[in-house]
Amino acid sequence: MSEKMVYFFGEGDTKDKKLLGGKGANLGSMTKIGLPVPPGFTITAKVCINVNKTKKWPAGLLSEIEKNVSTLEKKMSKRFGDNENPLLVSVRSGAAVSMPGMMDTVLNLGLNDKAVEGLAKQSGDARFAWDSYRRFIQMFGDVVMGVEHSSFEHALEKVKSGRQDTDLSVDELRKVVSEYKIVVKESAGKLFPQEPMEQLKMAVDAVFNSWDGKRAKVYRRLNGIPDDLGTAVNIQSMVFGNLGWESGTGVGFTRNPATGENVLYGEYLMNAQGEDVVAGIRTPKHFDDMAKEKPKSYKELQDMRRILEKNYKDMQDFEFTIEKDKMYILQTRDGKRTAAAAVKVAVDMVKEKLLTEDQAIMKMKAEQLDQLLHKQLDPKAKAKETSIAKGLPASPGAAVGKVVFTAEEATSIKEKNPKEKLVLVRTETSPEDIEGMDAAEGILTARGGMTSHAAVVARGMGKCCVAGCDAIKVNEKAKEFRAGELTIKNGDVISLDGSTGEVYRGALGLVEPEIGGNFAILMKWVDARKKLSVKTNADTPHDAQKAKDFGAEGIGLCRTEHMFFKPERIMAMREMILAETLEDRKAALRKIQPMQKKDFKGLFKVMSGKPIVIRLLDPPLHEFLPHEEKDIAEVAKEIGVPAQKIKDTMEGLKEFNPMLGFRGCRLGVKYPEINEMQARAIFEAAIESKKEGHIPIPYIEVPLIGTVREFAMIKEIIENVAKELDVKEIKYKIGTMIEVPRAALTADEIAKEADFMSFGTNDLTQMGCGFSRDDAGKFLKIYVEKGIYSMDPFQSIDQAGIGKLMQICVESARKVKPHIEIGICGEHGGEPESVKFCHRIGLNEVSCSPYRVPIARLAAAQAAIEDKMRKG
Amino acid sequence: MSEKMVYFFGEGDTKDKKLLGGKGANLGSMTKIGLPVPPGFTITAKVCINVNKTKKWPAGLLSEIEKNVSTLEKKMSKRFGDNENPLLVSVRSGAAVSMPGMMDTVLNLGLNDKAVEGLAKQSGDARFAWDSYRRFIQMFGDVVMGVEHSSFEHALEKVKSGRQDTDLSVDELRKVVSEYKIVVKESAGKLFPQEPMEQLKMAVDAVFNSWDGKRAKVYRRLNGIPDDLGTAVNIQSMVFGNLGWESGTGVGFTRNPATGENVLYGEYLMNAQGEDVVAGIRTPKHFDDMAKEKPKSYKELQDMRRILEKNYKDMQDFEFTIEKDKMYILQTRDGKRTAAAAVKVAVDMVKEKLLTEDQAIMKMKAEQLDQLLHKQLDPKAKAKETSIAKGLPASPGAAVGKVVFTAEEATSIKEKNPKEKLVLVRTETSPEDIEGMDAAEGILTARGGMTSHAAVVARGMGKCCVAGCDAIKVNEKAKEFRAGELTIKNGDVISLDGSTGEVYRGALGLVEPEIGGNFAILMKWVDARKKLSVKTNADTPHDAQKAKDFGAEGIGLCRTEHMFFKPERIMAMREMILAETLEDRKAALRKIQPMQKKDFKGLFKVMSGKPIVIRLLDPPLHEFLPHEEKDIAEVAKEIGVPAQKIKDTMEGLKEFNPMLGFRGCRLGVKYPEINEMQARAIFEAAIESKKEGHIPIPYIEVPLIGTVREFAMIKEIIENVAKELDVKEIKYKIGTMIEVPRAALTADEIAKEADFMSFGTNDLTQMGCGFSRDDAGKFLKIYVEKGIYSMDPFQSIDQAGIGKLMQICVESARKVKPHIEIGICGEHGGEPESVKFCHRIGLNEVSCSPYRVPIARLAAAQAAIEDKMRKG
Repeated sequence: MSEKMVYFFGEGDTKDKKLLGGKGANLGSMTKIGLPVPPGFTITAKVCINVNKTKKWPAGLLSEIEKNVSTLEKKMSKRFGDNENPLLVSVRSGAAVSMPGMMDTVLNLGLNDKAVEGLAKQSGDARFAWDSYRRFIQMFGDVVMGVEHSSFEHALEKVKSGRQDTDLSVDELRKVVSEYKIVVKESAGKLFPQEPMEQLKMAVDAVFNSWDGKRAKVYRRLNGIPDDLGTAVNIQSMVFGNLGWESGTGVGFTRNPATGENVLYGEYLMNAQGEDVVAGIRTPKHFDDMAKEKPKSYKELQDMRRILEKNYKDMQDFEFTIEKDKMYILQTRDGKRTAAAAVKVAVDMVKEKLLTEDQAIMKMKAEQLDQLLHKQLDPKAKAKETSIAKGLPASPGAAVGKVVFTAEEATSIKEKNPKEKLVLVRTETSPEDIEGMDAAEGILTARGGMTSHAAVVARGMGKCCVAGCDAIKVNEKAKEFRAGELTIKNGDVISLDGSTGEVYRGALGLVEPEIGGNFAILMKWVDARKKLSVKTNADTPHDAQKAKDFGAEGIGLCRTEHMFFKPERIMAMREMILAETLEDRKAALRKIQPMQKKDFKGLFKVMSGKPIVIRLLDPPLHEFLPHEEKDIAEVAKEIGVPAQKIKDTMEGLKEFNPMLGFRGCRLGVKYPEINEMQARAIFEAAIESKKEGHIPIPYIEVPLIGTVREFAMIKEIIENVAKELDVKEIKYKIGTMIEVPRAALTADEIAKEADFMSFGTNDLTQMGCGFSRDDAGKFLKIYVEKGIYSMDPFQSIDQAGIGKLMQICVESARKVKPHIEIGICGEHGGEPESVKFCHRIGLNEVSCSPYRVPIARLAAAQAAIEDKMRKG
Repeated sequence: MSEKMVYFFGEGDTKDKKLLGGKGANLGSMTKIGLPVPPGFTITAKVCINVNKTKKWPAGLLSEIEKNVSTLEKKMSKRFGDNENPLLVSVRSGAAVSMPGMMDTVLNLGLNDKAVEGLAKQSGDARFAWDSYRRFIQMFGDVVMGVEHSSFEHALEKVKSGRQDTDLSVDELRKVVSEYKIVVKESAGKLFPQEPMEQLKMAVDAVFNSWDGKRAKVYRRLNGIPDDLGTAVNIQSMVFGNLGWESGTGVGFTRNPATGENVLYGEYLMNAQGEDVVAGIRTPKHFDDMAKEKPKSYKELQDMRRILEKNYKDMQDFEFTIEKDKMYILQTRDGKRTAAAAVKVAVDMVKEKLLTEDQAIMKMKAEQLDQLLHKQLDPKAKAKETSIAKGLPASPGAAVGKVVFTAEEATSIKEKNPKEKLVLVRTETSPEDIEGMDAAEGILTARGGMTSHAAVVARGMGKCCVAGCDAIKVNEKAKEFRAGELTIKNGDVISLDGSTGEVYRGALGLVEPEIGGNFAILMKWVDARKKLSVKTNADTPHDAQKAKDFGAEGIGLCRTEHMFFKPERIMAMREMILAETLEDRKAALRKIQPMQKKDFKGLFKVMSGKPIVIRLLDPPLHEFLPHEEKDIAEVAKEIGVPAQKIKDTMEGLKEFNPMLGFRGCRLGVKYPEINEMQARAIFEAAIESKKEGHIPIPYIEVPLIGTVREFAMIKEIIENVAKELDVKEIKYKIGTMIEVPRAALTADEIAKEADFMSFGTNDLTQMGCGFSRDDAGKFLKIYVEKGIYSMDPFQSIDQAGIGKLMQICVESARKVKPHIEIGICGEHGGEPESVKFCHRIGLNEVSCSPYRVPIARLAAAQAAIEDKMRKG
């Protein structure tokens, strides 16, 4: 190898990522722009490949390293192995792509029997020096020399004999060091190396080796990372904040992360290491104090703040160490911030000309906007409390109220006292609970995932929900639930945090959402850029109005069945299901029709001039029948049929796998009169709305299509009603959900018949991945933990699998009908990564629950900007 | 249009199908080879297109028709509208592709007030003549003039006043004719046309119009038939077998359809029409009588037999009419035959040099072979009995025995008296019933489809099964079932026909299967041609041996869980499921391992030198737990855990959609020790088998893979065991089932890791089409009736949908690993059309239940021959 093998920090920068790895390029970059990074150097990834191939170091490598070590010694005024002022370094691997399975970091390399004395003198803390030494031997032995971790544990335990690490004296630590050296010799068959250069060579070799380790290889194979990329090695000098009162350490933000205010913000401790700040044993001081006590350091921080923001174009969260009055920056990254701060920072930075509008939009985390739109538990109150249980953050916001255990009770309490705040707690919810959920401030369930009934309905309502909280045991009969040792009874007050899944006992304070002027400014930029139309999933005028306020451009999914769970309606629905003849079924449907018509008129009014996708009846019929003995008796009496008849019907409708059963368009194929009634209600509503001055644009949607023939059959039913009612003046379309894999695969045939398509990605994921969202809880958590899916595919579209199916669908549909409108209306329609994916595969719209509309808008704009950037 | 518009029969033949339509081309063909077809002519499909476009007849069409009518009159020595000897014709549509929605046939066109008298004289039967006339008016009025069918019914009813059609006198029929003419005038606004040429022109126009009818258009759109194909019109002279004792009619076979013997075979009636033979009012005579009584006609039939077989290269079933001693052939088609006859005819025809071996194979209906391999109910006995119910023909063969209602009872009776013949009758079966099913001769269930548990297991056992027989109501408690008014009690004898689904009361006779020498000859030809390897689904040495006898080349699917339902084994399995710690689970698994090992050794012995695909544990764990209170108590006692614990475990394992739940490789991801045990059992068995002189070739198969990561994890478990046991000498492979759509879609990733793939098309269909096979009964029947699926997709692969997914999988897997072995092991592996599809998309093997192996072999050979033909 004749080319340069080692780069001192600053010789390369981010453009050299392939050569220097991500970490090395970044350290080089920071150095280059004048930030006081602890000096160091990077051995290139090419060297790694060469060494792994030839099994020896290339000529000249050692001397290049030695030259760089010597530069380092000069820069730091320290020397390797010195017993006064020893140079210590860290050794880290760093490939061009982040990769688990690579070598752990080795810290404090350079320590040996002599240097430890130097460190003791420097720090004035012999205990610290010897503890560092024994940790170094342990780390080096484990990571570099392959000594079993347990052997060290064993040796340490001998000296500790039951006491804490911190109880060990300097002498005892010296003893541990001797023991450790024996462990190394016995396990590795050779002595622990005293010579720092020897230590360094060994550590570098260990990094090289780890590239060809089994775990790294498997990871590369599964993720399509080429084997000939190699890893770079970073050697960086250690700095210490605990070398007396001229030394110190701290963390800073370039702006206030809570409010976004443009001021330096942070904390520090003198004569301390990073761990001390984190551990909270000593209370850190605010920067205001530093301004007075250490004005030079304070000014250095202010300078750094400007350099950082100018270079990284974002608010930064950085760590620094002051070693004997010399300032070092150890790390910088984009700072975490509240949603409110994020919006302010983005808008301010455009004003300050640090960012363009595009860049400001790209800095936003779409998911975070949710915080802005809901009430939140007061962070200060939360800080003081410990949660009693934690479930899934199923629907954001917060709720504080008295616990009730049945939907009926919630409804009846709320009727008597509309000001009462309630939290509905159930093992799981069912469609019958909807009214009760509406009456409550929030919902807590013990079972079910992010897409369980409770979660989906709550998100639709914009209501806080913690679902699948398996730490609680609900006893609905006894009206209480248990969380560990604690029992919460009917009427006790609890607080829910729907954004984190936490449950608290008692009433915590609430913070109202604040959508300031900056939010409006940002969203204006967003709308000017996005290509996707953002619609909402809404079944009621109330939800539709809320969504419109949040910027929805129409309704992408109106589930007609949700309209049937109100008491007076569900009864007519039940009559329909229990009817034995076509005539009886039609008679029951005639009762339902005017109710549906009224619902649709309400929606047409709110969304006048905007399209409304109305999905025909979808769920299995048994969802509408009562389940409890008592309810069955009641329904039987009211409808005037024997209770046994209801039970028989239930039995007949029972399914092994209801999700793959008799539902969706299958209902309409068998009972065309149901869809006929719905089409009639839609068209009559449209005609009347038009007369009343509104502009109804119904998109009638047939659910669960698997073949074009099913669609054509239902379409014919709808077209016949349209002809009969002579709806020429109404601009309507007839399209279909794509939720059965077969429909996606045969989209070319379906597109010939359909005016539009909308992906139902929940069902598409269930069928495509082969797991039901209600059951996947048993294994999906493990699946995400083990990296089988990088994200829960019910939360974010599984792009490699389900996404491929979507792409096949879009491509083959557009081949037949190039301008067919294609959208998505599953839960994924409001998840940023999924929205971006939808943009990339060329969809026309996404639809999501009202509160997620701003998130989807932002993600859509980001996707459009990314697109522009990709195309140059 | 300057080209020829009308073809007299014989001017064109089968090569003119596009111009003359299927029917016209065939009539032309038969005429050309010298068969006495009643003369007629065909108006080309091009004319239809032209007329529909220009809305008028092209110049010259009428005169061409008139010229052909005149030829017809001469040939038949009859004249249109003649009152002595009238020419009557039929008018039929006939496109190049068969197409529902086209016009119905019009018969006896040419009848009018004058010709009816001629027909009366000719036939010597005035009643027949007038009844023909009134039927013609009704048919013509309905089909050509658009008169409502009910209007005619109404007019007829007036005259009949409650009597039967046959009670009407000639005068009353004359009255009906007058009434009918009035109906036509009033409904259609014009008189019923008396002029035969006018009738003909109108009928031809009606055929043209029907091409653009709504039903025909929709059908074409959905089936991709071009609109500019058009339909031809066939005008053919009517001939009558009832014009006195020199006339007659009959049906014949060119060989004996029951035995295949090479003799003319059939029945006839003199002075009769085709309907009379079918209606069975007069008893038809055998051809032997004709040889004596009508030697000339008999000789003509013998001549026709030779011409037919020489031309159609197959045994024909033909209809003929003798009009006044002149022989006419009305129709010929390939004759239906028993399986035994089919084999004999095919082999004989090769000997006679009528067919090549390829052609003989192509003539076979693969599905039919089933008949040869099972006992059958004696057809003679069946002819005398009426079935009491009919279910799905779920597993072929026949069973006669005493009814039992529980699996336990079947087992215990059989143990006491091994000669007792039993039929197990259940609402549905579950895995716990397997032993009882094995003890019975046949199984009858009231619920479940062709792929229900009962059906699948019975087919695997080669045992007769009638499933989903919803005409019976089973009362397991009272030990009886009802079929209509009839009650069958415990111990009563019934007979099942598993090939038709029929259920009979009492004991019907059985016929043993006869696999003669011809069968062996045919299968030798088959094996020389097929490309697909045909393997079997078998879990026991017994089934494996049977399949090997039927020609299986290995085991394509061994379901390891079927090995666990024997009483002593299921208990260990239950212990494993109920274990709370890894250690307890491993302890239970250690009990199971030797049993598994023994099973595998048995299979390796039978299939020495042939691959055995062993699928790791697949079903959801709750299938192994007891369900009844009594059984739970028993198991609790035996294992030594509280009954409540079992119930809690059951509750924990309960799933909303078990088919999409915690099963397949998901079990192994969560509990790696299960697969580890199975791998150990397989490898230890292989090592020991090898020592004993057998050649074990295990293919270890991971079920329900959705992502490559799942596969890689389980593969690692298996490889670790392989390494530990040092199985270098065993040729093993590790592959996966493709049954989750996502796996098919990401086959390129999976193929990098997997040695082989096998489609589980049952699950792939369930997930891909979005219906569970257990629940689809509620709508799938309607779906097939309405043509949404042309076949039940659980019986024959849905090639357009699921097949597309399979193709995507094969193509993307082969892109990565060109020679990867891909097969199919679902129920479809033994269904001929599916086997052919598998050949076409390039699979390497199919696997099916033992009794379907010969069927699959034959279908595979046919696919290979079709391939050769396509490539020329």
